[in-house]
Amino acid sequence: LTREQLVAEIFRKKSFLCVGLDPDASRIPTMMGTGNKAIVAFHRAIIEATKDFCVAYKPNLAFFEALGPDGWHVFQETISLIPDTHFIIADAKRGDIGNTSRHYADAFFKQLKCDAVTVTPYMGKDSVAPFLEEEGRWTIVLALTSNAGAADFELQQLSSGKRVFEEVIDRAMEWGGPHQLMFVAGATQSDELEKIRNRAPEYFLLIPGVGAQGGDLDAVARATFSNDVGILVNSSRSILYASSGTNFAEAAADEAQKLQHEMQRLLEERFVIT
Amino acid sequence: LTREQLVAEIFRKKSFLCVGLDPDASRIPTMMGTGNKAIVAFHRAIIEATKDFCVAYKPNLAFFEALGPDGWHVFQETISLIPDTHFIIADAKRGDIGNTSRHYADAFFKQLKCDAVTVTPYMGKDSVAPFLEEEGRWTIVLALTSNAGAADFELQQLSSGKRVFEEVIDRAMEWGGPHQLMFVAGATQSDELEKIRNRAPEYFLLIPGVGAQGGDLDAVARATFSNDVGILVNSSRSILYASSGTNFAEAAADEAQKLQHEMQRLLEERFVIT
Repeated sequence: LTREQLVAEIFRKKSFLCVGLDPDASRIPTMMGTGNKAIVAFHRAIIEATKDFCVAYKPNLAFFEALGPDGWHVFQETISLIPDTHFIIADAKRGDIGNTSRHYADAFFKQLKCDAVTVTPYMGKDSVAPFLEEEGRWTIVLALTSNAGAADFELQQLSSGKRVFEEVIDRAMEWGGPHQLMFVAGATQSDELEKIRNRAPEYFLLIPGVGAQGGDLDAVARATFSNDVGILVNSSRSILYASSGTNFAEAAADEAQKLQHEMQRLLEERFVIT
Repeated sequence: LTREQLVAEIFRKKSFLCVGLDPDASRIPTMMGTGNKAIVAFHRAIIEATKDFCVAYKPNLAFFEALGPDGWHVFQETISLIPDTHFIIADAKRGDIGNTSRHYADAFFKQLKCDAVTVTPYMGKDSVAPFLEEEGRWTIVLALTSNAGAADFELQQLSSGKRVFEEVIDRAMEWGGPHQLMFVAGATQSDELEKIRNRAPEYFLLIPGVGAQGGDLDAVARATFSNDVGILVNSSRSILYASSGTNFAEAAADEAQKLQHEMQRLLEERFVIT
């Protein structure tokens, strides 16, 4: 999806929800059975239950790779279940020297046709550039993440006065424009979100950490809305595992709809929606 | 392999060579045919040709993932061809929030039984810790990489006076000991290698960038040898693609043996080898 298409979907659905698909075999409802077929069936039910309330899905590769070598087939089958109208983010946090990142870009964009892939910036420009070269696809660079470890390096101050994640944002904006580059900005760092928005006013932010990780949707949206919304807020476990019983899909739909309702209220508060 | 086993293999073979397995479908000799079977056959020939001259293999996941969803099966078949005596490094440069990194650790250690996995440190301690929790396995943290992009963040100075990669090394040494943690230190930064050795005197360094990336083996070894050698030097493309003709395996063996001979000379210069 292009930026214009993504924004149109956000206003059409009155939602900027991204549903994370983190298939933890030990938490799949027992009624689904076991093995990789159960995981695909679980994803089919979750996608069916939530697709009207979200604009994006974000499968995280770690959970698929933990299934063993067939995990990538489960990943491929899972994304084939996602409607064309939805933005697909491969949450893979890849990055390597330029020649090698080129192959990761091929894997996620050419082979699997994902809209976007998350990329770790540690190795610098040539590790990120091959993703940005892919016409019509998106690169989502980790800036400030939602975990405790963000304090170890991301939040450290450089001798220039900037913090590492701020330098990441500044540099990355030189490498890619707002039609192809987003940033990951953790919702548990809500005092930082407004600063990130001011630093990168035109860029979409992918905001994890609402739900199981405890971020507050109102504060997040007020700190980060841009003129065309400019945010995707992700929730994974609180939707996927809303219930472990036979009503898991209904519970996931309820949880997704609850978030969509809050998002609609926040959108209507800020934007004129026709 | 344990550290003791790895060091014993290094002295036995008089080699600290790691052969990188980066299967670029466009560079596989045409005589091998095409498709994933050709890649496995290519790896079988390369491993057979080089195993006497190296102590480790480092398949890079990017090249396997670029093959499509079957790429992980090709990866699994490839590592099944590597003898038990050799150290297997999954060059995957993974890292995510703790709960998610746990799944990556399962993928590479429990499912695929690799000895080691490379990890990117950007997200801090909880993104690295799950790899270190795996008894008998190794975590190889990116410190200073061999690419131009290293200048963008890794080499930047923090307000403490340390550079980012130095802070990574100092923090990571608090998280894991030298029997389970190594660092990636790029050979193209040879003026830096000696400083890294002094900073982490007991830790193994995985040194890429000799060969196609242009590092100088003599300078590297003299700057980084520790009391038990303490380094693995990787070469990928200069061995794999030494020839594109029918003699590719012989050419790979020659190239690996040439490096082993140089390594033997350097080891004999520094250590008493019985």
